[in-house]
Amino acid sequence: MTQDIFSHSYSAVHPGTDKTQVFFHDFDSEANPRDIFLPGRSGTGRCFVTDITVATLPFMQDFLRDFDIDDCNDIEVNRSYQVGSDTLVCLGAGEVFKTIDSVLKIVATALDAGLQRTGLFVGIGGGVICDMTAFAASIFKRGAQLELVPTTLLSMVDASVGGKTGCDFDSYKNMIGTFYPASKIHIFRAFIQSLPESEYNSGLAETLKTALLYAPKLFYILQNQYEEIENRDKDIVGQLIRRCIIAKANIVEKDLTETGLRMQLNFGHTFGHALETCAGLGKITHGAAIAWGMGRALELSVLLGHCEPEYRNEVQEVLTKYGWETKAYHPALESAGISPQAAPEKLLAAMKKDKKNTSSKIRCILQREINSTLVEEVPEDMLIKVLLD
Amino acid sequence: MTQDIFSHSYSAVHPGTDKTQVFFHDFDSEANPRDIFLPGRSGTGRCFVTDITVATLPFMQDFLRDFDIDDCNDIEVNRSYQVGSDTLVCLGAGEVFKTIDSVLKIVATALDAGLQRTGLFVGIGGGVICDMTAFAASIFKRGAQLELVPTTLLSMVDASVGGKTGCDFDSYKNMIGTFYPASKIHIFRAFIQSLPESEYNSGLAETLKTALLYAPKLFYILQNQYEEIENRDKDIVGQLIRRCIIAKANIVEKDLTETGLRMQLNFGHTFGHALETCAGLGKITHGAAIAWGMGRALELSVLLGHCEPEYRNEVQEVLTKYGWETKAYHPALESAGISPQAAPEKLLAAMKKDKKNTSSKIRCILQREINSTLVEEVPEDMLIKVLLD
Repeated sequence: MTQDIFSHSYSAVHPGTDKTQVFFHDFDSEANPRDIFLPGRSGTGRCFVTDITVATLPFMQDFLRDFDIDDCNDIEVNRSYQVGSDTLVCLGAGEVFKTIDSVLKIVATALDAGLQRTGLFVGIGGGVICDMTAFAASIFKRGAQLELVPTTLLSMVDASVGGKTGCDFDSYKNMIGTFYPASKIHIFRAFIQSLPESEYNSGLAETLKTALLYAPKLFYILQNQYEEIENRDKDIVGQLIRRCIIAKANIVEKDLTETGLRMQLNFGHTFGHALETCAGLGKITHGAAIAWGMGRALELSVLLGHCEPEYRNEVQEVLTKYGWETKAYHPALESAGISPQAAPEKLLAAMKKDKKNTSSKIRCILQREINSTLVEEVPEDMLIKVLLD
Repeated sequence: MTQDIFSHSYSAVHPGTDKTQVFFHDFDSEANPRDIFLPGRSGTGRCFVTDITVATLPFMQDFLRDFDIDDCNDIEVNRSYQVGSDTLVCLGAGEVFKTIDSVLKIVATALDAGLQRTGLFVGIGGGVICDMTAFAASIFKRGAQLELVPTTLLSMVDASVGGKTGCDFDSYKNMIGTFYPASKIHIFRAFIQSLPESEYNSGLAETLKTALLYAPKLFYILQNQYEEIENRDKDIVGQLIRRCIIAKANIVEKDLTETGLRMQLNFGHTFGHALETCAGLGKITHGAAIAWGMGRALELSVLLGHCEPEYRNEVQEVLTKYGWETKAYHPALESAGISPQAAPEKLLAAMKKDKKNTSSKIRCILQREINSTLVEEVPEDMLIKVLLD
């Protein structure tokens, strides 16, 4: 079998955009908030995507102004609404709707509305809506325009930045998707005020993760301004968001497609995802699971001799202050009927199924101290030790 | 509404691969042809995708060696087969199966087989299979490895090169997809011998397009070596394929995501797609439609004063020699019950729906002479003139 070969190379490209602009907006009831987006030129169009929970928030009514909707409480899931060359589609809310069917519903809505390749998709919602809208935009005619309005603290500090798009597939989380950063991200802090306590707290856990990985000053704020943070003080919330986005953007700039550095952003996630799986999806917030996971990762770092117990203790104090579990046996495991004795093996089995483990060993993100992170393949018996109560 | 903005930029990336290697293989019945692909490491796996027509070709039986298949004529559509860490899925054949359901079938097969992000997808088939396998690879865990084995002349010279992936959606062609070049393309000329005449001829039309756009020497071969080409002489077929791939690769290297130069590759397609739509999908081969479209585009070029009638005549001689229609009223329109009087308006309406027209005018690819192409927005009345018999 003879071979005869030649090859051609490609110049690198910028999927979606070459830069993300982040805007902080203050709300002005006079203005039409849709004016902040790239205008829909004639025949080009804009497709707005949100979910049924976000659509009924008081603050959203200004975004939905002029659409053919009588009463926002009557908005129907999967139905599309029009005004001029703008189309709105409202999806079901929550992780169970993070499906390829929802993504294709977005695509079909845009197609029916005659959206062109130069048209704009705008996702207004939490991580689920942002991820799915971005996925739809990335595959629509091989790539349309994209802007995002994250409405939860979690999606402001994490999900909307960095270009990961996707949806779940079968029972696997984020199994399909693309890398496709938004050209603009719009932050309205007003959304933060209407978040349920558990969702706000979930966003704080990702904030803590970013602090430990890259931002000592942010950690200092989390340690010392608990009161203002719990009261959702507008200025301090703005600071948290800004510092997180800058830190994350700095990493993503260097490693969009997660070949190395970006893997650090999974700090706490190996343990956290396993807990989410064992507890049952939706039984524990992502943030609470990640917070517990960071505690476990630091325990493991101490055990492996990478980090001093003092640093772990300092972090555990913060975890406790914000109400996150620091013990190996998480109450969510008990609720799921998993005994303290059975938990380590169950968690380990879940870790092995996680898509980020490319070999049979478990790859863990560990820390030496704040702002000093390492990735290491850890033998199973060491993992069991930090999972035993 | 005050705004406060900062922005972060991204370094450019190479979706899928930074280069495509093209291999020409000669068949050796001793060897296992699957040895040419990136090996499936333990736990990483390979997912082979083909269709029911290709699977039963005599030459394919070597590729399917060792899979748990008793008789290749009994291969079932949408069922997966295993050998070691290799999985095979066989899809329905033809454009009607170019659906998101088929793409998701590929993804589901790979997931069930435990394929990792570092795993490999291999598409073995014509343009439909290559486009869909590449689309699946590009969204699988946000991007897996990809190699292609095009089995038709059309996919060897055109579809498999250049990274366009996708599938149809609702009734629209290639409405969703990504840019994701294969890291390796494997050419087995042996597949050419088993192609039906119409499919071989369809590939020759794309070869002619490439010749007119970029390769005068290739046009010379098409003009003067008709006999060898019609007889599918192995050496001459090899030359056609090689010259086409080099010419197309040269364009795609400069413009992967079709922002400018690459648009020229749609020469003949504005007219051709309209004819396909009016004739009814599948009633005329893509190549025959494009060949007719190139004739119309050159007629229009003459009418607009861009090109000398001599060049048009020279091309029309070749069109006639290979059996392609040079008159405005294509027989496929008659078969579809569209009269010569009604045809121009019907074709024009179809052109306006084509996704590449971002404004209400019709963007046409025209030529001054061989290897000299221009893009121009042409008024409707001029188009009508070259569509009237």
